[in-house]
Amino acid sequence: MESNTYAAAGVDVAAGERFVDRLKVSSKRQGHEQLWRGCGSYASIVPINQDLAMALTTDGVGTKLLTAVETGKLDTVGIDLVAMCANDLICVGATPSSFLDYYATPKLNDAQADAIIKGIIEGCDRAGILLVGGETAELPGLYAENHFDLAGFAAGTVTKQTLITGEKIKAGDTVLGVASAGIHSNGFSLARKLIKQDHPLFDELLLPTAVYVRPAVELLQRFPQQVKGLAHITGGGWRNMFRMKEGIGFVFSKTPPLPPVLQAISKSVDPEEMYKTFNMGLGLAIVISGDETEMVQIFRSHGFASAAIGKVTDDAGTMTIHAEPQFGRKLNLVE
Amino acid sequence: MESNTYAAAGVDVAAGERFVDRLKVSSKRQGHEQLWRGCGSYASIVPINQDLAMALTTDGVGTKLLTAVETGKLDTVGIDLVAMCANDLICVGATPSSFLDYYATPKLNDAQADAIIKGIIEGCDRAGILLVGGETAELPGLYAENHFDLAGFAAGTVTKQTLITGEKIKAGDTVLGVASAGIHSNGFSLARKLIKQDHPLFDELLLPTAVYVRPAVELLQRFPQQVKGLAHITGGGWRNMFRMKEGIGFVFSKTPPLPPVLQAISKSVDPEEMYKTFNMGLGLAIVISGDETEMVQIFRSHGFASAAIGKVTDDAGTMTIHAEPQFGRKLNLVE
Repeated sequence: MESNTYAAAGVDVAAGERFVDRLKVSSKRQGHEQLWRGCGSYASIVPINQDLAMALTTDGVGTKLLTAVETGKLDTVGIDLVAMCANDLICVGATPSSFLDYYATPKLNDAQADAIIKGIIEGCDRAGILLVGGETAELPGLYAENHFDLAGFAAGTVTKQTLITGEKIKAGDTVLGVASAGIHSNGFSLARKLIKQDHPLFDELLLPTAVYVRPAVELLQRFPQQVKGLAHITGGGWRNMFRMKEGIGFVFSKTPPLPPVLQAISKSVDPEEMYKTFNMGLGLAIVISGDETEMVQIFRSHGFASAAIGKVTDDAGTMTIHAEPQFGRKLNLVE
Repeated sequence: MESNTYAAAGVDVAAGERFVDRLKVSSKRQGHEQLWRGCGSYASIVPINQDLAMALTTDGVGTKLLTAVETGKLDTVGIDLVAMCANDLICVGATPSSFLDYYATPKLNDAQADAIIKGIIEGCDRAGILLVGGETAELPGLYAENHFDLAGFAAGTVTKQTLITGEKIKAGDTVLGVASAGIHSNGFSLARKLIKQDHPLFDELLLPTAVYVRPAVELLQRFPQQVKGLAHITGGGWRNMFRMKEGIGFVFSKTPPLPPVLQAISKSVDPEEMYKTFNMGLGLAIVISGDETEMVQIFRSHGFASAAIGKVTDDAGTMTIHAEPQFGRKLNLVE
């Protein structure tokens, strides 16, 4: 199974991290100390005054676009685009309000553009935010034939009081896990190697990323003291949970149901690699204190399954997954 | 000269406009009446409260990227990227504060990434804003070999008092023209047809777009009553001035010095087409009332030449250019 890793699928995660490191170094000389949160956070928090800040984030859909192009089903990648950005904003406690898209194609095609914009607007509706602008670029020569790219930009606001920094997280806190809707928009370079167009679950690859904005905003409003950290499970899989606070670990006694397409992929991929690449049924992880019953209710009322699945530990950078029926053994992941 | 038009160069402006129209229609059902300015404006203005709003915009560099890739000089397109976004923000009276980039490439390459980020940070420094975040996407298969794309997102704030709506503009107001630094980031699909790599002015194509943020912010602070409208001259050339207010026209008695590369292009392109595609030496047009002397001083102190070049008229959607030594005749452009 050695070759079925994210790296072997052509994605150089280390190169990506080196780039982010350089960005951080470059950014330091620019006076980023004035930001409430900067590079590396789920969103950048730019203060407007002492109490109020803008929360800004950008993301793309990755090679899920290639699957969309292959199938010709282009009206859901816009939902993914909005979800990838807006779900990041809620992780800092922000209330998302606005979305802008960048859509670049070698040749504008009305049918393609209509399908994409339809998805973006649907994504914004699901998030309860507005598509306020965008750029459509016709770039002959830059893209492979019939291909295009999408980038998204989401903005919201957050106050000093509602900002989630993760600093309150401590050992013993509960991890509330919210179910994903499928593979979402990550790990596609590997997934595409294993789930080809003739695979019975191929269509499931395109299921749009769940948009957690509405229940998360409600949760943050109703339980401002109990919600201590949120992690959108994207590229890097469950390791995203380490982004909530330095020096913490996790132990999981439950795992969410694995979407069928991830079950299929798991037959050819090492379990550790699965958890380091895919969402494994977990779209959003929330660290809370106290009882989760009413929080589960909020997610249920918005159509999302959720459950307490684990605890925070002091064992920095480690993750132990006890119950994993899919793999039948205990997994230990390190950051 | 018929074939040297923007359309013949492969850019379907009408298709782009149809897309924007559909976007506007789609947006209406989403409650955009709450925005101070929406789609079609230089920036979207999203109110935070009664007096304060976020100003958001996104843009790319267009096919200037292809020229950068051909020459291997990649450390200035980042400046263009920041300029294209941040110059749009000042046109609504906003104070830009933040920038995020989306950089997508088939294969991460440290040297390429370093050059690009260097340009983006230089652009942010010129604008006096912070690079607060970004997304670097490695997308094998989506782009033509050795190609990449860049999208930028800029954010700032504006108050009800500082918002520039254009509504105060009236016939007789002066147009203050600020010089461009060259071709900037527009009209490249046509320019690339005419200025090939063996052309003596080829390198000039890559001169970075002027960043007008610092002088514009100073101007808006010092002359809040006299500055009535700003137009960043981008795709669509001088027609961008019609975006400041509906129902106005312009008459120009002076034209700015034409950058050498635009002089060269003008030998093969119809004058009207030139003004409808390129900046023609004019990077920023500002409608003002009163005397421009001190305003010219502000721009000079930031290294930009500027001059009163024309007047606003009531002749809706028309533009008369009297002094055009390059073409030796009066030009009449309609919106």
